[in-house]
Amino acid sequence: MTRFKLTLEYDGGPFVGWQRQHNGLSIQQVLEEAVLATVQETTTAYGAGRTDAGVHALGQIAHIDIEKAIEPHRLMAALNFHMKPHPIAVKACDVVTTDFHARFSATSRAYLYRIVSRRAPLVIDRGHAWHLVSELDVAAMHAAAQRLVGHHDFTSFRATICQAPSPVKTLDRLDVTRLNDEIRVITEARSFLHHQVRNMVGTLRLVGEGRWSADDVTRALEARDRAAGGPTAPPDGLYLTHVIYGP
Amino acid sequence: MTRFKLTLEYDGGPFVGWQRQHNGLSIQQVLEEAVLATVQETTTAYGAGRTDAGVHALGQIAHIDIEKAIEPHRLMAALNFHMKPHPIAVKACDVVTTDFHARFSATSRAYLYRIVSRRAPLVIDRGHAWHLVSELDVAAMHAAAQRLVGHHDFTSFRATICQAPSPVKTLDRLDVTRLNDEIRVITEARSFLHHQVRNMVGTLRLVGEGRWSADDVTRALEARDRAAGGPTAPPDGLYLTHVIYGP
Repeated sequence: MTRFKLTLEYDGGPFVGWQRQHNGLSIQQVLEEAVLATVQETTTAYGAGRTDAGVHALGQIAHIDIEKAIEPHRLMAALNFHMKPHPIAVKACDVVTTDFHARFSATSRAYLYRIVSRRAPLVIDRGHAWHLVSELDVAAMHAAAQRLVGHHDFTSFRATICQAPSPVKTLDRLDVTRLNDEIRVITEARSFLHHQVRNMVGTLRLVGEGRWSADDVTRALEARDRAAGGPTAPPDGLYLTHVIYGP
Repeated sequence: MTRFKLTLEYDGGPFVGWQRQHNGLSIQQVLEEAVLATVQETTTAYGAGRTDAGVHALGQIAHIDIEKAIEPHRLMAALNFHMKPHPIAVKACDVVTTDFHARFSATSRAYLYRIVSRRAPLVIDRGHAWHLVSELDVAAMHAAAQRLVGHHDFTSFRATICQAPSPVKTLDRLDVTRLNDEIRVITEARSFLHHQVRNMVGTLRLVGEGRWSADDVTRALEARDRAAGGPTAPPDGLYLTHVIYGP
């Protein structure tokens, strides 16, 4: 048996999310079916981040165990062949030891959230960014974002259905920058709560529009109540960009 | 009668190109029909660049004449409303004098060609870049590209069906740069011949793969024979980025 670490890119648009569900097609299912088609083995793919419906990945990490002997570059080519035409691609495939676990060995996860602020509807970026017509004060957003960095109880920013045992997390980075009409939110943490990134972005939008101050963000955080946080940003703009293992 | 200058973004994928044709839907037709729906007038939209089937635009410029009095911001909103769900958007709308002509007043056009060089198929960029599995020597491509900059007879790089009166053009810029696994070709000229950018990119690919030298590019140029130039790159990677008017 060989364990393979897969680096995946996908367009989350047509999927119910990473995880298998009864109500539609998941990235996990397409990947597992491609493994079955390649080596005639039923396997479970474990992902580093369980991205929600519509959320994209540029560098999701998954691991799979395969009995049959196969070279990593052949496995990668075969999986890419069998996953067509689904918008999922294996970008890298490496053999790892069996103590590697895509989810539990991960020490850091990084997400990008793309906002495009302009009057015209999105065309090239349709489905790949959050379209806002309002003008956003990016410096104010970045300053307010720093109120969330650090070790906090993020109850106000997690989905009420979140099943994590604790709402306390350490947020390592939450940067807001502008490139022309695009605003990029980049965030890193060991792990995130359900909807945490989208809820933080939905809150920072209020700051960017001048409706909330940085102090309002602190008050929302301290309330430890989801109703005190801002609304959830749509999945379109969210990308799992990379996962880090080891120190 | 008021003349409006429109700045357009579109995904060229579903269209036969800028220009109206009998065999399918064009950007021009969608725009003209949106004008009809907005002000009940039949108009002709003139574009700065007649982009081919599948070619995208981030900053195509068009002009239209409208009899009915309408504010530019209202016209822009109405056109965007009526063009849905087609992937075309008016990004800016300005009143211009009637001596402005989107095509004939343009003094410079700029295109971007995106190549993604990697083994995995494209997912997020599917249809929006040229996927090459080969590794490309970007420095060699850029050096060879400089052989094409300047005042030349570009017969070797224009489509045999090109109807321009002369194959002699001045190429002002042809830069090749890399950003991670993406290679960007940026080119500027007063005007381009039919397929000129795609033929130059298809030729530079041969250089990037080490199959052609910069001297081969010079020889191809000097041959003044389309058969001597490299193959035509696909439309997927090509974007009309902006058009300049005035000195």
